[in-house]
Amino acid sequence: MDSFQQASPPPTQPLEIRVGFDVALRFPAPTPMIVTLGVHASRVADLLEEDPLQVEPEVPLRLYVDSYGNHCHRLVAPAGVLRLRGSGLVADSGRPDPVLPALKQRPVEELPEEALLFLLASRFCESDLLSPMAWSRFEGGAGGWGRVQAICDFVHEHVRFDYGRSSATKTALQTYESREGVCRDFAHLAIALCRCMNIPARYCTGYLSDIEVPPPHTAMDFHAWFEAYLGDGWHVFDPRNNTPRIGRILIARGRDAADVALTTTFGPSELESFEVWTA
Amino acid sequence: MDSFQQASPPPTQPLEIRVGFDVALRFPAPTPMIVTLGVHASRVADLLEEDPLQVEPEVPLRLYVDSYGNHCHRLVAPAGVLRLRGSGLVADSGRPDPVLPALKQRPVEELPEEALLFLLASRFCESDLLSPMAWSRFEGGAGGWGRVQAICDFVHEHVRFDYGRSSATKTALQTYESREGVCRDFAHLAIALCRCMNIPARYCTGYLSDIEVPPPHTAMDFHAWFEAYLGDGWHVFDPRNNTPRIGRILIARGRDAADVALTTTFGPSELESFEVWTA
Amino acid sequence: MDSFQQASPPPTQPLEIRVGFDVALRFPAPTPMIVTLGVHASRVADLLEEDPLQVEPEVPLRLYVDSYGNHCHRLVAPAGVLRLRGSGLVADSGRPDPVLPALKQRPVEELPEEALLFLLASRFCESDLLSPMAWSRFEGGAGGWGRVQAICDFVHEHVRFDYGRSSATKTALQTYESREGVCRDFAHLAIALCRCMNIPARYCTGYLSDIEVPPPHTAMDFHAWFEAYLGDGWHVFDPRNNTPRIGRILIARGRDAADVALTTTFGPSELESFEVWTA
Amino acid sequence: MDSFQQASPPPTQPLEIRVGFDVALRFPAPTPMIVTLGVHASRVADLLEEDPLQVEPEVPLRLYVDSYGNHCHRLVAPAGVLRLRGSGLVADSGRPDPVLPALKQRPVEELPEEALLFLLASRFCESDLLSPMAWSRFEGGAGGWGRVQAICDFVHEHVRFDYGRSSATKTALQTYESREGVCRDFAHLAIALCRCMNIPARYCTGYLSDIEVPPPHTAMDFHAWFEAYLGDGWHVFDPRNNTPRIGRILIARGRDAADVALTTTFGPSELESFEVWTA
Repeated sequence: MDSFQQASPPPTQPLEIRVGFDVALRFPAPTPMIVTLGVHASRVADLLEEDPLQVEPEVPLRLYVDSYGNHCHRLVAPAGVLRLRGSGLVADSGRPDPVLPALKQRPVEELPEEALLFLLASRFCESDLLSPMAWSRFEGGAGGWGRVQAICDFVHEHVRFDYGRSSATKTALQTYESREGVCRDFAHLAIALCRCMNIPARYCTGYLSDIEVPPPHTAMDFHAWFEAYLGDGWHVFDPRNNTPRIGRILIARGRDAADVALTTTFGPSELESFEVWTA
Repeated sequence: MDSFQQASPPPTQPLEIRVGFDVALRFPAPTPMIVTLGVHASRVADLLEEDPLQVEPEVPLRLYVDSYGNHCHRLVAPAGVLRLRGSGLVADSGRPDPVLPALKQRPVEELPEEALLFLLASRFCESDLLSPMAWSRFEGGAGGWGRVQAICDFVHEHVRFDYGRSSATKTALQTYESREGVCRDFAHLAIALCRCMNIPARYCTGYLSDIEVPPPHTAMDFHAWFEAYLGDGWHVFDPRNNTPRIGRILIARGRDAADVALTTTFGPSELESFEVWTA
Repeated sequence: MDSFQQASPPPTQPLEIRVGFDVALRFPAPTPMIVTLGVHASRVADLLEEDPLQVEPEVPLRLYVDSYGNHCHRLVAPAGVLRLRGSGLVADSGRPDPVLPALKQRPVEELPEEALLFLLASRFCESDLLSPMAWSRFEGGAGGWGRVQAICDFVHEHVRFDYGRSSATKTALQTYESREGVCRDFAHLAIALCRCMNIPARYCTGYLSDIEVPPPHTAMDFHAWFEAYLGDGWHVFDPRNNTPRIGRILIARGRDAADVALTTTFGPSELESFEVWTA
Repeated sequence: MDSFQQASPPPTQPLEIRVGFDVALRFPAPTPMIVTLGVHASRVADLLEEDPLQVEPEVPLRLYVDSYGNHCHRLVAPAGVLRLRGSGLVADSGRPDPVLPALKQRPVEELPEEALLFLLASRFCESDLLSPMAWSRFEGGAGGWGRVQAICDFVHEHVRFDYGRSSATKTALQTYESREGVCRDFAHLAIALCRCMNIPARYCTGYLSDIEVPPPHTAMDFHAWFEAYLGDGWHVFDPRNNTPRIGRILIARGRDAADVALTTTFGPSELESFEVWTA
């Protein structure tokens, strides 16, 4: 089950991808919040049209860049409904996720310091608890790229995609045991297993232009994947799709979903409506 | 139960505190590791005598400062027993932990960005799960310093100290439910509850000169406490002792104990012996 | 002199750009050095073929990511000649530098904190000394993108390109006065003027695929440009060429060239040979 | 001239140091500014009384922590006079600056990454230009602590303190040549020379409780000193006083004074009055 190498690459052509969102939340009282819905700092240079966050009613916005390089806005939502909208036109190479099977796993002592944080357990990735399982399953096989691919293959087959079984507090261990989840859960389990094997892994969220929405759902959603540190850098893996895809537009990265919620509200709120698109 | 204000302050005199450790680990195979046993960067200027980490057998050591300002060493432990030793003489004001009841809680929108990370859930502090309990219990009372003190009072009374019930993977929720734990568990539960109430909180580990060791244990150990962001800065709280103490020498800070293990080994190892002292 | 808007965009097609270098330095004694010759962290994901740094004679290499996100290697050069080689195949959108004249200058109070450092004077960009000149010249005209473009137009016309007048310690003020310089000097002067006008600006170095080498020179060199913070992000400007170009491959960013020397040697050394290519 | 070792240490007793400032600036127009006048993050835990920044007229203040760990406030000064006041009571060990002659200079290849930035030339410390002088003068003698002390001795003797010859744009090279300067210039020259010798050095500004004010001046001012990286950490040196002092309260650190101006105004302003005290 290592289908990447055989795939004949699709003809590449550069894309202009229109992305956007329209979210409404209801607040019983004024509530501070952090919004991480803009395109990631590393993709700002590819924006062909500006994509400012629009907020209704209008409130002061403060942009900051968090310790992972994510573009975040701080604001205080007034009581009532808050609507957040944004869109952008992003230049993209049109090239599918690179597959580089020759990349080696770096021994821990050779990893750059900035990668070490991504070896540690985190809220939704209990690598400390999953370690015995991971070693028994993934120690024997190939190292490097092959090992991360084996982890993705395992997660892809072990977990059944089920929109109905999503939960904002579900962890990698719970996904391993329940064998059900959404893209975020696929990513968390694969991240935890990579960390068990001493491969730094970080959580990514963003747009995926050719995402498939399983019936009966018709609406788009954001997608979640991860990056593993192999060779001299970070590389994309997507255990939910488990095949190279085109048009990934990164929004945010972190240790896991706890670090990169698209909206973090410091008080109660209710989702009124939610729409995401890429084209 | 707010005994701090009444306490008559002990007469302050400056201290010279000798601290040290002597740890031996057995490795079945060469194993990379991170050692965070030195005095924290913020206390290096107080070192009256140098405190280099000594490793037996001698192996190359590489010092680095992690994203929290902790002094960490990287090394590869050879197969067999590795002994880590260090000691230092640290100047200390001899002043007990400050008690500043007038300090206010900053609204989230006024917090400096660097504090925001310490509002999020982390491996051992599931503030997302504990939030309803925290709000029902701590919303009504005083804000600011008083609220953090109320959290410490609650944790101090709710949890029974029990050396035997320690576990390296125990979380705040598990401590809340089992009502047993060690200083690290007291800290995790209080941190999680502070974060629920939108007060940034971070985990601290280090030496405490006047630590009490409960019988039948006779050996010292490192201590764990936390810092909460109130007013314009971080302030020490210690829910295990729950009274101001003298001679806290910080070693490391992080989101929780997952970030600041004193030794992190990337492979199996066994603790052979362990000694810590302060005087 | 605002030729960007009129230019009809060239037909875009995605590129695979082969880049590389081959540098030899002679050292009289063993000398520690930092090498920043790899593709920048933000472009690692575009590498279609790995680009490991090769060093002759072989010495231990340690990769790290500096505070600007640059990929740097540390090593100790032995006495004698050290040869550094590397190459890579980089996917590129083939799109010229975006021109976004509608982008506004953010007032200082709305800039994200991470941009503030790039408002301050630095080793080669004495914005403190150039401020009166800058205000008298650039205050009146358009703000935002137009102001940065006016600065680039001014620098492009004021300074004569002269390979022979390059110096590793030449500053923006010296370039302004001598009216001669290389691409690095063009960038330093424009950066200093942007900072005078409260527009954050940072120095960039890397490959430019369609760089023109003025006769009698035939060899390629690395190129220098800068990024200005406009709207919600950093955008490319190139006062040396002063027209949108294709195939910029970033190597490193910093406050100025003092932060991003391609090689920094902590002791004497002599350049023996130097070759750079892009194709 | 190595008077430190012979000095009999004064009897140490802990101090409570009251510090404060009262500054007034006149602005012709609304002007954004950054104020770095609070006690440094590393000393916030020693504050016995809160020290909030007070601004007249009242304007919104936003606290942030910059990349050096400095506590900075952002605000927009209205047209007219702006008055900034603050004070605090700081616990201090009362111990003079430690003298640790046994500390060694780390070879560059063993320095932690976070120290490397402080080896590079910066706006006011042209180590690139001063290198030949530094090597001819300081290569022969002792290494480590002794070398930094030799640099301080040289600067202390070479430069004449002269309040009248201060300039906000004076560099280390200009101080070396003019042989006149204020504490800030002493620090810049010593920092530049340390960097020439591959010793990381960073600029510090703050209160010094027993500062001497040379007649005819009667008013206090802030003080400037520096820290050099020796052994496993940063250590205080003060080439202006060149003898250990008591009661240093750090406000800010950076590469040089360009990074840590006490107030940075992004537009014209005039100093109306200025008062600083420590007791």
